[in-house]
Amino acid sequence: MKIGDAFGRAIQDWLDGSVEPDLIERDDGHIETGAGPQVYLAPFARWPSVERRAMRWARGRVLDVGCGGGRVALHLQDRGLDVVAIDVSPLALRACRRRGVRRVRQMRLEDVREGTGTFDTIVLFGNNTGLLAGRTKGRRILRHLLEVTRPSSRILAESMDPYATTEPAHLAYHARNRGRGRMGGQLRLRVRYRDMATPWMEYLFVSPDELRALTEGSGWSVARVIESEEDTPLFVAVLERDDRP
Amino acid sequence: MKIGDAFGRAIQDWLDGSVEPDLIERDDGHIETGAGPQVYLAPFARWPSVERRAMRWARGRVLDVGCGGGRVALHLQDRGLDVVAIDVSPLALRACRRRGVRRVRQMRLEDVREGTGTFDTIVLFGNNTGLLAGRTKGRRILRHLLEVTRPSSRILAESMDPYATTEPAHLAYHARNRGRGRMGGQLRLRVRYRDMATPWMEYLFVSPDELRALTEGSGWSVARVIESEEDTPLFVAVLERDDRP
Repeated sequence: MKIGDAFGRAIQDWLDGSVEPDLIERDDGHIETGAGPQVYLAPFARWPSVERRAMRWARGRVLDVGCGGGRVALHLQDRGLDVVAIDVSPLALRACRRRGVRRVRQMRLEDVREGTGTFDTIVLFGNNTGLLAGRTKGRRILRHLLEVTRPSSRILAESMDPYATTEPAHLAYHARNRGRGRMGGQLRLRVRYRDMATPWMEYLFVSPDELRALTEGSGWSVARVIESEEDTPLFVAVLERDDRP
Repeated sequence: MKIGDAFGRAIQDWLDGSVEPDLIERDDGHIETGAGPQVYLAPFARWPSVERRAMRWARGRVLDVGCGGGRVALHLQDRGLDVVAIDVSPLALRACRRRGVRRVRQMRLEDVREGTGTFDTIVLFGNNTGLLAGRTKGRRILRHLLEVTRPSSRILAESMDPYATTEPAHLAYHARNRGRGRMGGQLRLRVRYRDMATPWMEYLFVSPDELRALTEGSGWSVARVIESEEDTPLFVAVLERDDRP
């Protein structure tokens, strides 16, 4: 097994017609198919409805974080917005360029610096609220994002409420996390794809209430939660700055 | 991760409407989606054409080996044949019973004994030629199957030619095998499904020529190879006894 850009490799293959999905492996050995090409390459009309509805709050200069195959960046570009798409995966960014995303940067969320300019909207779609990783790192990242935003800026933060499950393996994982002082939905994950795996990464799933608590003291607050109309645990929180006008 | 009946658990979930596939992990870390419910629960009309065509050679009393969700046993029962379906997975057998398979036994291929009676046809579908595992064990199993068959009996042995690939990870695996005196397509695999994994198992993929060589001295010979009309590497070999009338 090769440790590397497994996720970007999958996206490249999907562009070439493969439908073999990415796999998401948790550090307790739980493994499932990921979102696959149907989601990562989906046109706007096939996005989850919470994402479509949340797009009303996107405006101005946009940072698309963890842009993957570029679906969000492409949609916002089409709407005439100025988008910078970032991802840690070089092959994902190559796929984005191939699909027409104009401005891509290989960069982690925590490394976004003023050199990239100031953003009116930061999009964390595809559950990328997960990149906040946990309470401490999450608050640090949010505070840091004050430096690359304006008082009127917003963060559109998508997550899946991890507690909407009855699966024993998930409940045991949450309990083990709490026993260690971690948030229940703080997962250690990696992507596997054919003969490749990414490095392990910390990835956070939160309930709306947990996200409200996490933002306390970060300079950001949950202004609104867009909840699923299809009874799925997916939601998008609109975060606004505490110094908003 | 729980070591156990991961495959049977998947079949049970598929019967309850899940479409999350089984995953096949090789001991070099390569992992891919398995055949999933579309294949394991497929009605005859959706089987691979080599399997449909091979069914012409099924007759009399049939042993369905590694019966999985029971698709082969159900089809042959419907045709009026007397079928015994065996699998090592207790949950697979429970699924078979739930779907209407009349005679199921939890048993490995190598443990089929005279107590189970004499078979006119032994079916190794779903690539279950793999259960021959390798040259030595394969020949031993074939010789043993002389005891539970008649001179006129047949084995319908399906495999996928492992050499019809250009994927570097597969080619490297074949080369490593050969360097150790193993057959190229001798794989060490396990099924993973959500929080479960089966024990590791030896599973053999062969070319038609390799299968011809493997049967030498076993009491069986490859009488005919039914090859794919769709340019896939799948085939079914019809094995007949060397003492056939």
